Amino acid sequence: MRQYEIAVIPGDGIGKEVVPAATDVLDAIAEVHGGISFKYTSFPWSCDYYEQHGKMMPDDGLRTLQNFEAIFLGAVGDPQRVPDHVSLWGLLIKIRREFEQVINIRPAKYFRGLASPLLKPNDFDLLVVRENSEGEYSEIGGRIHKGADEIAIQNAVFTRKGTERAIRYAFELAQKRRGHVTSATKSNGIVYSMPFWDEVFKDVSKEYPDVKTTATHIDALSAFFVTKPHVFDVVVASNLFGDILTDIGAAIMGSIGIAPAANINLNGKFPSMFEPVHGSAPDIAGQGIANPIGQIWTAKMMLDHLGHQEMGQHLLNVVEDVTHSGVKTGDIGGTATTQEVTQEILKRLKR
Amino acid sequence: MRQYEIAVIPGDGIGKEVVPAATDVLDAIAEVHGGISFKYTSFPWSCDYYEQHGKMMPDDGLRTLQNFEAIFLGAVGDPQRVPDHVSLWGLLIKIRREFEQVINIRPAKYFRGLASPLLKPNDFDLLVVRENSEGEYSEIGGRIHKGADEIAIQNAVFTRKGTERAIRYAFELAQKRRGHVTSATKSNGIVYSMPFWDEVFKDVSKEYPDVKTTATHIDALSAFFVTKPHVFDVVVASNLFGDILTDIGAAIMGSIGIAPAANINLNGKFPSMFEPVHGSAPDIAGQGIANPIGQIWTAKMMLDHLGHQEMGQHLLNVVEDVTHSGVKTGDIGGTATTQEVTQEILKRLKR
Ligand SMILES: CC(C)[C@H](C(=O)O)[C@@H](O)C(=O)O
Ligand SMILES: CC(C)[C@H](C(=O)O)[C@@H](O)C(=O)O
Repeated sequence: MRQYEIAVIPGDGIGKEVVPAATDVLDAIAEVHGGISFKYTSFPWSCDYYEQHGKMMPDDGLRTLQNFEAIFLGAVGDPQRVPDHVSLWGLLIKIRREFEQVINIRPAKYFRGLASPLLKPNDFDLLVVRENSEGEYSEIGGRIHKGADEIAIQNAVFTRKGTERAIRYAFELAQKRRGHVTSATKSNGIVYSMPFWDEVFKDVSKEYPDVKTTATHIDALSAFFVTKPHVFDVVVASNLFGDILTDIGAAIMGSIGIAPAANINLNGKFPSMFEPVHGSAPDIAGQGIANPIGQIWTAKMMLDHLGHQEMGQHLLNVVEDVTHSGVKTGDIGGTATTQEVTQEILKRLKR
Repeated sequence: MRQYEIAVIPGDGIGKEVVPAATDVLDAIAEVHGGISFKYTSFPWSCDYYEQHGKMMPDDGLRTLQNFEAIFLGAVGDPQRVPDHVSLWGLLIKIRREFEQVINIRPAKYFRGLASPLLKPNDFDLLVVRENSEGEYSEIGGRIHKGADEIAIQNAVFTRKGTERAIRYAFELAQKRRGHVTSATKSNGIVYSMPFWDEVFKDVSKEYPDVKTTATHIDALSAFFVTKPHVFDVVVASNLFGDILTDIGAAIMGSIGIAPAANINLNGKFPSMFEPVHGSAPDIAGQGIANPIGQIWTAKMMLDHLGHQEMGQHLLNVVEDVTHSGVKTGDIGGTATTQEVTQEILKRLKR
């Protein structure tokens, strides 16, 4: 029996409701397939924690997390109480950065039983590889002067290493999928970072002559995610562009409540982190109506990452079956509670 | 008879096909309503021009344009022949900047007769006000080191003046519409420029207590343009965010081929410029199949700007009638040519 040590951070709002649902499901699938189990250690780091301790996690928080094989996170943030740049940069983004989770991957696909807002959802199945360590999200910049004269400058930093790494990761994935990588660019308007990104993309693509490539400006690409998502296989994007594209990806599936994400550490020195795309949704927290599918699909990504693709696929099939059967939460047109959806998934998993 | 002096720059690709269509329509509507006429002076500045002269426009090009009351532009760019950062920054963006066209406005609405890719297009009617002079499109930045060590740095510059101006413009428009402004932000991830943007938004909003405000992160906002576009009235966004949102806006209407734009000079020192959202589409150029509606709707925005809202509205109604009647180009599901669509519009205008 292989037991995985998982650090669990439910975080804020609905994170506290969907994380327990997803760990129940993880336990069930491990039991059904056998051979593995999970040992969870839960950490209360969140905006609640911040209000008590003046920080989002203890000073040795990262050291504590480092010993785990993966981090399973719910959602962070509650802007009414703690400014986002404090809560997110003190926990979510801090872990991404300090644990060198340099790649963020997020799938979007036609999901059985979900009403896509698109007229013809067309069976799309794409994967966005997002550079997760630098780019437009750089804590470099500042402000000068006051009042009418004030100026804010924000630096975006793109390194060859960081850019190449994300692009190469995309090509590797494409080779195992349908062999096509689309690069999100904006070199016609953003004239230093994006032409650099394009060059690196061109260089790396030479190493993968079997992979088809396309470069598309982020404005057009965002539109194509709506008008023809089926043409995409793997899409590689900078931190900001990946952020935007993956929310559109979630939207065309039918709900941001179902989209999963993985923050991947590549050098093996730190754990990877798995978190859904949705936020903490303080407006519906505590009502038991949050959609657990985002967190459960995120559990599937963790299973894949730990080498259990078969279990991952089984889990996703069951979740699609349940959605297809109509047992779903309000955000995707059903009337079920978080618990009812979870119980239905557990029941079908054990069949 | 008031005669307007219009500088016309057809530019590249399909620009050369749709601009004459739109000026024919402009002449017709002026004739039908009476009282005004247009005098066009056409300039061949384009990638062709670049190949002959090594520049996108003559050195005194801006001085020449300055004497006109408006600039009516088709599309610029042909990346197979001239790199975008040369063609666009040498003509389109140069005019936007030098003529202090600090605001870019782009409507998106449910358009009769157009198949939206959305299942329920829900009669949305929104207007994006895009900051058009600074932000992420700043020619500030550079690169250092070579090969594996290379780094690119891109600066985004946000001034109080530029930010406030765009936001104030959005509030003014909202007062004449449905009284709601949504601000596109990303202050949770981009920690210098976007919190600044948020502060300015808050400050300006105090001057408009009758206008409802919402601030939404660009990732979620992009998704909402797909899932619930009907909730938006005026959306104000930075240069990059506005660029992305307006392409999504075009996509949900049914085609980027129909979306118009206005680049507005506010200080009266220089002409404003009117150009469709679509590009030069070199792949279909010369075939006579380009959709002229983007350019014609752009003509409507020019009419509005010159103070002829009634003519503008008449024109748009006729265009919607024609689309609704099924006379449309291939990109929106029809079989008509550019000429056929234009003729049908002319015919109905003159009825
Ligand atoms: C061509 C490009 C530089 C331009 C922009 O991003 O401004 C275009 O996408 C637009 O939106 O007008
Ligand atoms: C909360 C925010 C900083 C975060 C991001 O943009 O990275 C989120 O939108 C995401 O995509 O994980």
